[in-house]
Amino acid sequence: MDAAQEAQKREAFRQAVVNTLERRLFYIPSFKIYRGVAGLYDYGPPGCAVKANVLAFWRQHFVREESMLEIDCPCVTPEVVLKASGHVEKFTDLMVKDEKTGTCYRADHLLKDYCKDKLEKDPNLSAEKAAELKHVLAMLDDLSAEELGAKIKGYGITAPDTKNSLSDPYPFNLMFQTSIGPSGLSSGYMRPETAQGIFVNFKDLYYFNGNKLPFAAAQIGQAFRNEISPRQGLLRVREFTLAEIEHFVDPEDKSHPKFSEVSKLEFFMFPREDQVSGRQARRIQIGEAVSQGIVNNETLGYFIGRVYLFLTQLGIDKDRLRFRQHLANEMAHYAADCWDAEIECSYGWIECVGIADRSAYDLRAHTDKSGVPLVAHEKYSEPKEVEKLVITPVKKELGLAFKGDQKKVVEALEAMGEKEAMELKATLEAKGEAEFRVCTLNKDVIIKKNMVSISKEKRKEHQRVFTPSVIEPSFGIGRIIYCLYEHSFYTRASKDGDDQLNVFHFPPLVAPIKCTVFPLVQNQQYEEVAKKIAKSLTAVGISYKIDITGTSIGKRYARTDELGVPFAITVDYTSSVTVRERDSKQQIRVNVDEVASLVKEVNDGTTTWADALSKYPTHSS
Amino acid sequence: MDAAQEAQKREAFRQAVVNTLERRLFYIPSFKIYRGVAGLYDYGPPGCAVKANVLAFWRQHFVREESMLEIDCPCVTPEVVLKASGHVEKFTDLMVKDEKTGTCYRADHLLKDYCKDKLEKDPNLSAEKAAELKHVLAMLDDLSAEELGAKIKGYGITAPDTKNSLSDPYPFNLMFQTSIGPSGLSSGYMRPETAQGIFVNFKDLYYFNGNKLPFAAAQIGQAFRNEISPRQGLLRVREFTLAEIEHFVDPEDKSHPKFSEVSKLEFFMFPREDQVSGRQARRIQIGEAVSQGIVNNETLGYFIGRVYLFLTQLGIDKDRLRFRQHLANEMAHYAADCWDAEIECSYGWIECVGIADRSAYDLRAHTDKSGVPLVAHEKYSEPKEVEKLVITPVKKELGLAFKGDQKKVVEALEAMGEKEAMELKATLEAKGEAEFRVCTLNKDVIIKKNMVSISKEKRKEHQRVFTPSVIEPSFGIGRIIYCLYEHSFYTRASKDGDDQLNVFHFPPLVAPIKCTVFPLVQNQQYEEVAKKIAKSLTAVGISYKIDITGTSIGKRYARTDELGVPFAITVDYTSSVTVRERDSKQQIRVNVDEVASLVKEVNDGTTTWADALSKYPTHSS
Repeated sequence: MDAAQEAQKREAFRQAVVNTLERRLFYIPSFKIYRGVAGLYDYGPPGCAVKANVLAFWRQHFVREESMLEIDCPCVTPEVVLKASGHVEKFTDLMVKDEKTGTCYRADHLLKDYCKDKLEKDPNLSAEKAAELKHVLAMLDDLSAEELGAKIKGYGITAPDTKNSLSDPYPFNLMFQTSIGPSGLSSGYMRPETAQGIFVNFKDLYYFNGNKLPFAAAQIGQAFRNEISPRQGLLRVREFTLAEIEHFVDPEDKSHPKFSEVSKLEFFMFPREDQVSGRQARRIQIGEAVSQGIVNNETLGYFIGRVYLFLTQLGIDKDRLRFRQHLANEMAHYAADCWDAEIECSYGWIECVGIADRSAYDLRAHTDKSGVPLVAHEKYSEPKEVEKLVITPVKKELGLAFKGDQKKVVEALEAMGEKEAMELKATLEAKGEAEFRVCTLNKDVIIKKNMVSISKEKRKEHQRVFTPSVIEPSFGIGRIIYCLYEHSFYTRASKDGDDQLNVFHFPPLVAPIKCTVFPLVQNQQYEEVAKKIAKSLTAVGISYKIDITGTSIGKRYARTDELGVPFAITVDYTSSVTVRERDSKQQIRVNVDEVASLVKEVNDGTTTWADALSKYPTHSS
Repeated sequence: MDAAQEAQKREAFRQAVVNTLERRLFYIPSFKIYRGVAGLYDYGPPGCAVKANVLAFWRQHFVREESMLEIDCPCVTPEVVLKASGHVEKFTDLMVKDEKTGTCYRADHLLKDYCKDKLEKDPNLSAEKAAELKHVLAMLDDLSAEELGAKIKGYGITAPDTKNSLSDPYPFNLMFQTSIGPSGLSSGYMRPETAQGIFVNFKDLYYFNGNKLPFAAAQIGQAFRNEISPRQGLLRVREFTLAEIEHFVDPEDKSHPKFSEVSKLEFFMFPREDQVSGRQARRIQIGEAVSQGIVNNETLGYFIGRVYLFLTQLGIDKDRLRFRQHLANEMAHYAADCWDAEIECSYGWIECVGIADRSAYDLRAHTDKSGVPLVAHEKYSEPKEVEKLVITPVKKELGLAFKGDQKKVVEALEAMGEKEAMELKATLEAKGEAEFRVCTLNKDVIIKKNMVSISKEKRKEHQRVFTPSVIEPSFGIGRIIYCLYEHSFYTRASKDGDDQLNVFHFPPLVAPIKCTVFPLVQNQQYEEVAKKIAKSLTAVGISYKIDITGTSIGKRYARTDELGVPFAITVDYTSSVTVRERDSKQQIRVNVDEVASLVKEVNDGTTTWADALSKYPTHSS
């Protein structure tokens, strides 16, 4: 199969999945009767149940298992918070406008489409040109506005719909902006992530945890991203549910007490080196990855392992899941290491979970902006003698030399790290003066020996004060669910061979309903039995749906297979009933009194279907 | 105790509750390190757990019990939807501005404060004046902008902080506005309620339900309200969680098959008549209220009963809960009936749940605006002969008479109900012409006999097409939780009598953690036992917290009483342990192997604490 055929097959598969999802109301384009809004979707009843199940399992697997501190913050966020986090300045995409109609496009999308199209469809493309276009595709995320603009002009790319010429690319902030309160003076945004709500509460949460590290806080909630032109259906949307964890840890000790519980797990990893050298993702034990230094530290490794377990237990195919390390150019400058859990679906490899060691960046940013120190303390059991760098700027001399710039020079001197300070001291002692970079003035100044004293002093300290590092696993819940739909979907021929029937083979954990109850024919006796079974299912906490329509039993099975219901109980007798498993279509006969607890056990996993098959008589219809 | 003392006592109680809530991080003022934003609060760890428990119970009690269709829609909503619903035009409060500083105030709040202040603090107030002020307070919600402005001017009310004069009142829309997409042309709002997301999906949901009525849809989610000046702490906030139900029902049959399950419930109701005539709320059986016509219909009555059960099972004091019927002037013109579940707390009686029969208003509004008919069908088993009103405007004649207004006259004629049409017909036949009101032109016109034909015709119909009525129970989750905090809070003296200790007597259903595990002293043996118990608690699904600090057991009890943890397990021996109940402080000895299942049973309610007391030896510390 060539690339075009592959693409066609993927597209057909996606259409089959999406049609089923939309027809059975797993999702609904929002505000459909008003012709909708791009990038906004509703979860209909089965989708909403799947989402609730995924979130409940997330709470169980992460929050409860690790005793995380879960909090719940508002979506409306004042500007100051998002200025501190850098979102006001940097949460942008580059946009171009159709110069006549004003229609907006994402600049990188147009360039990407152009390159892909050429590569796929131009038979006369020279090898040299093809290599160039491939290089552009690889570099897409790194291009500046100027570089993108130059490429768009250079290739003669025009607006897709009108062929009009395009403006130069310029940054568009992706946050939904609003105004808080009636005055119109207080600017706010709908949060682009839930993490900031945790960071600004660090002090209280640290206190709540008995002033002890490490600990993790977690939040589930809506986040917003005003996409320029949403594409990829349910994957790139303007409002979505995030589940985020911020694990605060001593930067000097990122070991994890439970690392041994995951260290033997082996799965596909795609380290930076392998990507750069053109190799494929390969199976690595996470314990190995940490000990070889491929993954920066145990805590990061522990979460990678836990994310692997989470996703595969939900039903994500482990062979279409990989952990890809960020390349140096993808990673924020402050990050120590970053891995994305990527899931392969018909759109390609999709980033669904990001697991980053963000070092002390976020807490420092909010400390600086708010003036409230977001730090941790380690009390020494007995006072420690430490050698401490002491920098004392001589303000009088600095004032004479730098006048209005004095304050910035003082700050820059005080901010020096140990190495830099000791070098400056050496130069001053050797030459009497030195060039010194003041970033906030954006220039070098000359510092003379009498302007600053630098020394190391021994002091007794009772505690260490430091900014914790944060390790952040961040889950795009909607993306995980969409990939799960694709990984769970298959079709099989109907009994008469005339139709292709759709099935979602959700594990019970995820299934929107755990079982259905079908009276075989419409009569009062069977309906009474169905009601009795329904009552016992409620008593054991198993969600169910009764279908008393006279529709043929085959059709009723097909209908609920399409919703991914794992088990069906057919009432075809008054003392015993038939239980059918969705994927094997195998059937067993079970007494009415036992059926609820059996269905509970096979759903909970305390009994396997194989066990049930050997215990109960099989039934052939 | 006089009114002022009462007020002081309430204030002191509230301070005690709120201090405890804030110190133990049940909630945190959002963005506190940046000095916060009025009306925005975070749920800290215990608050977040309480909220999750309340929502889980809501899902169980309403969604699962009634097989409701739960959906999940975005918060970002395009303008057209909220124009149809009336929010763009009418979701406003009246605001006045300090004419010098521009500070904004809610006009009714200033007037209310003025009246209350005068009534409470002015010893020279004449009886006549006092009566006037009381009347103003009673009418507050009904005053127009002009009337409010006149009162404010008349009483010489000025800006509270500056004493500057105030602007005239003008409406301020309470929705947070934003812009969808990059063009800036597509206006949107953060939804003020979740209900609209359900209404616009009616057609799909009706189909999903097999085209059958009645059915209910439900949604839990964030809603937003840009308050002018938030007051009353956690009760009036700018972002909150709503849980809403829209129960769609045939307007000709609002009976409810399960009404008998609630009809014997008796609780405080406050019918319209009793309010108007100055009586108090009184205990009424809901079955009586429906049969006497106090409550409009069975379905509305059923939901009132279910809401009563929901709130009291959460721990709301039934003696401080009442169902108050809306007065005629409070109710929207389209509503058939409306009751608020009000809970008494230190702020007075607070509306926490609204239960309204909104008739066909919402579905009609969206039908009109979208052009998509949101209707239900009732197929007749055999065709029915029906007498049908037929109104045929004679467009030629109307065109000659009304020119450009013709369309509006035609629409008005066609929109006549049966009674109105038959009266018009009679008048036309008697006098040859008639006055006819055209609301959309805001005038009466003269209709002549040759301009319209009105008749009743017999037709065979195969189905009835109608717009369903909607009964809407709408829950303010944050308000319910706050009232629950107040109703659950009490203090008791510490053992030595020196301190007042705080306790929340949450039922297990609500408690943020179900039990704590305390090794009595710090030693490895006890900690091993604690771990073993923790493992079995996890196995039976009971959330717990281990506290291995060496703090005295009394202090550890006090700490968790303050979080409302119902049971504590103290490891004071290796084969058996002490289980303590929070409110009675009674203790029993239980074997290590049995303790997890016992704690599960007393939490689930399958065993009572009294049963446990009689079964196990009591323990005195």
